[in-house]
Amino acid sequence: MSAITTRSEHACHGGRIGFYEAPSAALGLPARFAAFLPQAALDGAKVAALYALGGLTCNEETFVTKAGILRFAARHNLAVVAPDTSPRGAGIAGEDESWDFGTGAGFYLDATEAPWSNHYRMASHVAYELPGWVEEAFPIEPARRGIVGHSMGGHGALTLALANPTRWQSVSALAPIAHPAAAPWGEKAFSRYLGPDRATWARHDATLLLQAGHTHPTTILVDQGEADQWLAPQLHPEALRAAAEGAGQALNLRMHPGYDHSYWFIQGVIEDHVAHHARILTGSRSQA
Amino acid sequence: MSAITTRSEHACHGGRIGFYEAPSAALGLPARFAAFLPQAALDGAKVAALYALGGLTCNEETFVTKAGILRFAARHNLAVVAPDTSPRGAGIAGEDESWDFGTGAGFYLDATEAPWSNHYRMASHVAYELPGWVEEAFPIEPARRGIVGHSMGGHGALTLALANPTRWQSVSALAPIAHPAAAPWGEKAFSRYLGPDRATWARHDATLLLQAGHTHPTTILVDQGEADQWLAPQLHPEALRAAAEGAGQALNLRMHPGYDHSYWFIQGVIEDHVAHHARILTGSRSQA
Repeated sequence: MSAITTRSEHACHGGRIGFYEAPSAALGLPARFAAFLPQAALDGAKVAALYALGGLTCNEETFVTKAGILRFAARHNLAVVAPDTSPRGAGIAGEDESWDFGTGAGFYLDATEAPWSNHYRMASHVAYELPGWVEEAFPIEPARRGIVGHSMGGHGALTLALANPTRWQSVSALAPIAHPAAAPWGEKAFSRYLGPDRATWARHDATLLLQAGHTHPTTILVDQGEADQWLAPQLHPEALRAAAEGAGQALNLRMHPGYDHSYWFIQGVIEDHVAHHARILTGSRSQA
Repeated sequence: MSAITTRSEHACHGGRIGFYEAPSAALGLPARFAAFLPQAALDGAKVAALYALGGLTCNEETFVTKAGILRFAARHNLAVVAPDTSPRGAGIAGEDESWDFGTGAGFYLDATEAPWSNHYRMASHVAYELPGWVEEAFPIEPARRGIVGHSMGGHGALTLALANPTRWQSVSALAPIAHPAAAPWGEKAFSRYLGPDRATWARHDATLLLQAGHTHPTTILVDQGEADQWLAPQLHPEALRAAAEGAGQALNLRMHPGYDHSYWFIQGVIEDHVAHHARILTGSRSQA
């Protein structure tokens, strides 16, 4: 796709990690992303892709740099696609005032309230525009997509997959903001991106989506550290568990004593997440 | 050790990664470092330690964050100790003017020239002071130390181990500056830290140390990408190979087509480096 600019590419684990930029119609701004292709893809085979969503303050480099995901993506013949976490440079007043709203904090939704609605449309970007880009530019199969995320990115993975389970065939999350409508981070973001009517928040909240009967046909894998500094009041895995039980949603929620919210935790469980997605997307534990 | 301040600690791979600071007599300034302890050490056993040295512009966080080393340190029951790459805040004119000299570029030597000689003493800090700190504060055995590094850190690992092979029982390097006296980076740094007399440079150059008959009793493992953007004229692995052959030094120099100088390369070979050190330091392939 000629509109994609390559910022850098690096051989990695027999495949290639690249950092790219393209003009985003969804965001009305240039958007950056990372894409890893395993060796089989470089050799011409089409592969399934796992989309990896970062948390507050992160960008398209964070997850692929800190999670240790590429070793296992290479092992399972999966591409990894990592978007940014918000538009950059929208120039909206207040955009850069706090680390948990605006730049670096797009919350993977399409804002409906001015002035955010012109640019803060990360749901459309991540769910439609970015897959379109990478499935045209790289040997990535359109029909096999998984989605995983950390914290705000875990919220993004869960809500995008529950809202559209045919678009995302597998889903997992790491320390997700599982019930943002009841969390300070979510209340701050939703009230400004979506407005004061809480009824409009429900389709951007994994717990409320499950309560409304939205489910995913596969087991959802979620890992959560018990020493996570944000566990209460931001993350609410117990609400997700209760909503999953009520909806009949298969959920493998694993609690980990002693672990916090950082990528030091994530790097210890990421192998299981990649294997989870590979089992669903490729039907095998490993192709390497 | 009461003078060590804990900046943060995080559970990781069954063990714990921590970031610390202490007043450094060697540097005349506070010095930061990272230390990973595997689960066995947290349970009270003494473990061997692998010192991991970063390259130009890096700090004590870089190697442990980007190399993917902790997964394998945990598997082999090794501690990992990562120093900073220079003093910070010495306040010397010119210290922050360039990315390849001064702050972030201490070159793991003790400067002899004013004004650098008061603070730029990373050799003493890394080889003596830091091991003293961590062997007192943590369950780390004094007699079993390995050293690995990337780029400028590879230079540091090779030169410190060749100059004092009884202090470092195992050594390896990733894309090291293998002959800095013949490289622009090294010439810039050595001429200012050590002065114009090139005879004083020889004990800070791995190739020249080998030529002078300094060897290490174990095989030295070195990995180098053939697409490394710094290969010529900065790194000179061919000079290291020739000097090792001349000195009778066992060297396992592996060249990797397509790989560059980045941590995207390092994360693909780091497993072999940790295993190399574990075989020598603990006599086993894995204790996990």
